[in-house]
Amino acid sequence: MSPITAEIVTIGDEILYGQITDTNSQWMAEELSALGIKVLRTTSVADTASEIIAALDESLNRSDIVLFTGGLGPTKDDVTKKTLCDYTGDQLEINARAEAHIRHLFESRGLPFTEINRQQAAVPSRCEYLHNAAGTAPGMWFSFQGRVIVSMAGVPSEMKYLMRHEVLPRIRERFSTPPITHRYLKTTGIGESFLAEKIAQWEDSLPSHIKLAYLPSVAEVKLRLTAFGENTEAELDAKVNEVLPLIREYVYATEDISLEEAIGKLLLEREATLSTAESCTGGNIAREITKIAGSSAYFLGSVVSYANSAKLDILKVKSETLSNFGAVSEPTVIEMAEGVQRLTGSTFAVSTSGIAGPGGGTPEKPVGTIWMAVTNGQETVTRKLSLGKDRLTNITYTTRAALNLLRLQLTGKWQK
Amino acid sequence: MSPITAEIVTIGDEILYGQITDTNSQWMAEELSALGIKVLRTTSVADTASEIIAALDESLNRSDIVLFTGGLGPTKDDVTKKTLCDYTGDQLEINARAEAHIRHLFESRGLPFTEINRQQAAVPSRCEYLHNAAGTAPGMWFSFQGRVIVSMAGVPSEMKYLMRHEVLPRIRERFSTPPITHRYLKTTGIGESFLAEKIAQWEDSLPSHIKLAYLPSVAEVKLRLTAFGENTEAELDAKVNEVLPLIREYVYATEDISLEEAIGKLLLEREATLSTAESCTGGNIAREITKIAGSSAYFLGSVVSYANSAKLDILKVKSETLSNFGAVSEPTVIEMAEGVQRLTGSTFAVSTSGIAGPGGGTPEKPVGTIWMAVTNGQETVTRKLSLGKDRLTNITYTTRAALNLLRLQLTGKWQK
Repeated sequence: MSPITAEIVTIGDEILYGQITDTNSQWMAEELSALGIKVLRTTSVADTASEIIAALDESLNRSDIVLFTGGLGPTKDDVTKKTLCDYTGDQLEINARAEAHIRHLFESRGLPFTEINRQQAAVPSRCEYLHNAAGTAPGMWFSFQGRVIVSMAGVPSEMKYLMRHEVLPRIRERFSTPPITHRYLKTTGIGESFLAEKIAQWEDSLPSHIKLAYLPSVAEVKLRLTAFGENTEAELDAKVNEVLPLIREYVYATEDISLEEAIGKLLLEREATLSTAESCTGGNIAREITKIAGSSAYFLGSVVSYANSAKLDILKVKSETLSNFGAVSEPTVIEMAEGVQRLTGSTFAVSTSGIAGPGGGTPEKPVGTIWMAVTNGQETVTRKLSLGKDRLTNITYTTRAALNLLRLQLTGKWQK
Repeated sequence: MSPITAEIVTIGDEILYGQITDTNSQWMAEELSALGIKVLRTTSVADTASEIIAALDESLNRSDIVLFTGGLGPTKDDVTKKTLCDYTGDQLEINARAEAHIRHLFESRGLPFTEINRQQAAVPSRCEYLHNAAGTAPGMWFSFQGRVIVSMAGVPSEMKYLMRHEVLPRIRERFSTPPITHRYLKTTGIGESFLAEKIAQWEDSLPSHIKLAYLPSVAEVKLRLTAFGENTEAELDAKVNEVLPLIREYVYATEDISLEEAIGKLLLEREATLSTAESCTGGNIAREITKIAGSSAYFLGSVVSYANSAKLDILKVKSETLSNFGAVSEPTVIEMAEGVQRLTGSTFAVSTSGIAGPGGGTPEKPVGTIWMAVTNGQETVTRKLSLGKDRLTNITYTTRAALNLLRLQLTGKWQK
């Protein structure tokens, strides 16, 4: 059975001028996917009748459902409603419930209810009016030539209100959607191509109703298994259990969470705490850890020892160590990690020191030379990276690698 | 003269499944608009040959330039390159420069260079190879039936590298884009609508060949003035000088640099140094400062005192202060800023302490209560924020506000 298909069309010049990022499409696509609906396209077009009509013609040709956001408001540049009305051969009529709602919103704020405001309550006479309790622009649901067209305001809170309360319930009711199930394997410390080689045979063994996707980001690859059809849970779990032994050291989670979240869980399980001593990462490791809600339960603090004086005075790195080996060296990161561990009394401590670039390199220690250490109080492990010349990439990559070194020490998987 | 038109097509199931937000399109649209190119559409399609071909057919019908991102990688689900090659009736050939570059990337990291990696260096023989120094997937530029097709990796840093160094220069060269000149006013500390009110009269006075764009981001609004035509430099400068007195306290730069960069310049001019003491921002201020190349000339370090013990032991905040006023209080942030200033010997120091959320609020200090301080050794200024409930927004907004408080103190513009 072929899946129900949908398209999302965002209307607004501000997106095409690059003035705002469209975040509505991602949210809507996730909600539709969760219902088993296949989103074929997302499109952004200008708010002119001709562009809206062109987008309508194309999407109705391909998809069962076309969802519009934006282009609905009291000002002249909003032409969506008029265009949809003409397209479906209808005429605008004031909707009594919408009028009462908008009038109430204005009067409760002490604002005059003008004719321009009243016209916002007009919708095509044959569409289904969708009540927008979060704002003034009514939603509209058109059944047209065997397809569905939906129009919603572009303000994210209004779009979400209409999707949750009016649109998604109607889609569930009108379409019989096949179920879809996902599993995730979050990996780090291995590149996409090496991962692909390691699991090539397993990947070839997947049945046609199970799809695998590689979703890479900096220093990470997320594997997503998607099964189409009824009762695929056990089959998907079996597939996950088949592939796990092939890549176990690289998998930090079998759910869709970040490495920082996975580390937070590991620390909470062990009732352990963490601190960091950062030079080249400049506080980025601490910032990634503390982005997670609840991190104050296990994160004690960080010393960003950017200047050598901070390494000496706060972390108590020995001046002989700095003069004999330099700030970017194995002995220095060991003393940094052990120094911040003593200072904060944390169970674990992570340290980094390196030449992030673009300047500061030498023939012996070129830009991209990074040292890192993790200590658990008894044992301190270290790792050296030789990265490229881009400062931000080096900071981001070093952060991921240091978090992964911590994960490996936490789980006893670290091997030099 | 009708404008040069372009479309942006993003390839990847992960967007249609709603797993990631497409931020590339916004960035690209802004860059293209700045060249005077009209972006007609942005589209996201699945990474299958048929969807890519359908998108190509449609966009080549409408637009002079079609820019693809995504769908280029070493694994099987990436079909873009093969599809573009077939579409243009070409065949793949290993590009020697690409091969050397990819081989170097792998070997310098001590990784084996496999045949899968080598195949990444293959590009259609008649396309122009675009060198991607930021990653392994080559960019491609096709001249095809009087149109231009460009293909770039979807990783934002790689796309941006290719756009800046290869694509935008070629677009400027190949298309006779009308001469265009920009001026930027970077503002912070004022919302878009208030800013618009303050400069409404000035905006109305702009001649028709000068356009103003408001480009908002978190806690910032970038104003871009664009003049079309020859010899507009002096006219634009005059317009900037007219508007500056209306909004001077909010303008941190009259060039397109970030607030961190502007602060770095101010510190260098004054031969001053900086340190931070961060609680709720968790190292994010230090990370923003140290993202800037050369920041080691003025940034000494940070103490991320997440636990109260770190505030007491490292920053020497008095225990009476914490017990009498709490960690989120004016006296605490004053002692934090002064503590880290003494500890590092920096000229200036910034501190933050707040309840980032979602948990941890009380009736007196709800989630979103934030205190911050800036000291110059003689005088310490403070500010309180009452933000919302979203943790990441609170961290980001507090970081921008603390940097702005530092800027105002540095420039003598701070008024309580």
